[in-house]
Amino acid sequence: MHDDRVVYTKRCERLRRLAEADHLLIINETNIRYLTGFTGGDGALLVGPDWMILLVDGRYTTQASLETTGIEIVEFKVRADGIASVLQRKGIRFLGFESLAVSYGEYLKLRDALPHVSLQPLSSRLDFLRALKDDQEVGEIKKAIKIAEKALTDLRSFIKPGVTEADLAVELDYRMRRGGAGNLSFDTIAASGPNTALPHAIPGNRRVAEGDFVLIDYGAVYNGYHSDETRMFCVGSPSPRQREAYNAVLEAHDRAIAAIREGVACGEIDRIARSFLEHNGLGKYFTHGTGHGVGLDVHEAPRLSTGREDLLEAGMVVTVEPGVYFPGEWGIRIEDMALVAKDGCEVLTTPFEGLVEL
Amino acid sequence: MHDDRVVYTKRCERLRRLAEADHLLIINETNIRYLTGFTGGDGALLVGPDWMILLVDGRYTTQASLETTGIEIVEFKVRADGIASVLQRKGIRFLGFESLAVSYGEYLKLRDALPHVSLQPLSSRLDFLRALKDDQEVGEIKKAIKIAEKALTDLRSFIKPGVTEADLAVELDYRMRRGGAGNLSFDTIAASGPNTALPHAIPGNRRVAEGDFVLIDYGAVYNGYHSDETRMFCVGSPSPRQREAYNAVLEAHDRAIAAIREGVACGEIDRIARSFLEHNGLGKYFTHGTGHGVGLDVHEAPRLSTGREDLLEAGMVVTVEPGVYFPGEWGIRIEDMALVAKDGCEVLTTPFEGLVEL
Repeated sequence: MHDDRVVYTKRCERLRRLAEADHLLIINETNIRYLTGFTGGDGALLVGPDWMILLVDGRYTTQASLETTGIEIVEFKVRADGIASVLQRKGIRFLGFESLAVSYGEYLKLRDALPHVSLQPLSSRLDFLRALKDDQEVGEIKKAIKIAEKALTDLRSFIKPGVTEADLAVELDYRMRRGGAGNLSFDTIAASGPNTALPHAIPGNRRVAEGDFVLIDYGAVYNGYHSDETRMFCVGSPSPRQREAYNAVLEAHDRAIAAIREGVACGEIDRIARSFLEHNGLGKYFTHGTGHGVGLDVHEAPRLSTGREDLLEAGMVVTVEPGVYFPGEWGIRIEDMALVAKDGCEVLTTPFEGLVEL
Repeated sequence: MHDDRVVYTKRCERLRRLAEADHLLIINETNIRYLTGFTGGDGALLVGPDWMILLVDGRYTTQASLETTGIEIVEFKVRADGIASVLQRKGIRFLGFESLAVSYGEYLKLRDALPHVSLQPLSSRLDFLRALKDDQEVGEIKKAIKIAEKALTDLRSFIKPGVTEADLAVELDYRMRRGGAGNLSFDTIAASGPNTALPHAIPGNRRVAEGDFVLIDYGAVYNGYHSDETRMFCVGSPSPRQREAYNAVLEAHDRAIAAIREGVACGEIDRIARSFLEHNGLGKYFTHGTGHGVGLDVHEAPRLSTGREDLLEAGMVVTVEPGVYFPGEWGIRIEDMALVAKDGCEVLTTPFEGLVEL
């Protein structure tokens, strides 16, 4: 059986190891969920060598006690004051905090509320707290992918001339949620024609037309875990130039995936995809990184982008998503998710066999 | 005709007035949208006495030039470096920034990238940048409300014994989006029975049963503007104690709304609702603030909570949402939206006439 307390204890041990600090303040909601099981917002987690205290406001007190075990719950009115009172009670003088989760304004409030405590930004190694997924987490991600892919299969019959991008997004989202998604990984991108050239297009009232590329970047959330994949359709037949670009992106994608294994630098995966596109004269149209970790957040460590020296480790789940974008014309992105292993990777999503012509 | 450039110029003038600084860095995405029309993410807006420069990464360059007019667009690879290069070119030595939008880690990066620039956190008065809504904004909010309320009307026939909370949320969300909502204001809360005692319940697999309270807290987004309202249903007849509590919350809500007008302190509205519930022995079950501003964010200034001395001004749009929660039993919240006027307020949502028994 899956024992929650063992899992959370292991995660806290990893936290302490990465943080290299005796006393920690965790504000990032996803980290709090990962370390305790609490899914609410606006909390604060104080972590000592052998204890954890979860601070929540009045809206979340009941929820926090239902969702956690073996953790003291303290209710606060003002977060900084609640933190101060616990630190005073425990006599803590040095406190590490997540420098990207705490705003400068909140930092000033904490400094004022904690005149006798030295606040120390924690190492960015903490970004990797959630990077290695255990079997249960991989299972949740696989369920999220299954829900998403089932919904996309159901959506195919909708993708035809006359349908709006917004309709495609709404119908896909509905099918993911009917299929069991607790939420969507992000605002679904359903772009058509020239809008496919916008990597973060917002689905609008444009109607799909004959000859269009249709790009769907979408994901489902299951038990907090995200899926993220991008699929291309062509309504009718692509032009030779479109087909050539598609095949180049697909090969960049395949080469990157083939290179994934424990011990390879994240930047190397990006370099492989990028240099292939560069050699095909498409480098300057590839305007974003090659991939990112996925888990309780849809974007998390590691980042597969230029120059990243972090090494891939078995258990990481990453996207691989090269793309090329010709403003005013069209764009292409192909995105899959892979679980890093010792000697390669397992592709978790179900790749299309090629450009789907509808 | 609605002239965008006049609108954005006015908004920037208000920004400069509130900020009391010659040069400003705006990072908050909603503020960037409000000041420029750019709806993408990860940008930075630099504002001088008579110029604005929008910095975006490669994913957003095309989108930024399509969505804005009269603003220089600069593309960056690393945000702090992009900001540094503009400041250097302009010879800027003092830069105000939003202390709640910039993380402590990002602040350290900026400080390192800008060794010759003095970084100064802007006044919290900037929280009120978007607090006053013009006619067009109120129009968008009204459209969002109309979409949401139409969807809730359509949902009513679903609320009966046997349906799950998750189903209610999915069907309501689908109807809002089919009705034209670009998005949902937040994760819809559809809670039943004892789950209504959780102010931020997550809709789950619990099935609605005879005698249950059902609480729906939901909203639609239209052109970026949010609605937010909470409605109570009772499946069958409420107990005398439930009816009494409902009537008390309703009267607290009505008294608070009756007190809204320009010049009244925000904390006074909260005090009116709270003291009525206290006099009815329910004070300790009212565990959150009475309301908040709504606009491009679903929660924004002003806050109607204990002790807030900010004065209401004509043009603010706020929620009024007292509630009482009996852990393990049931909870009640009634939430409407009001537009503050000189001599009172206009209730924008359509209040129920009382507890709806289904």
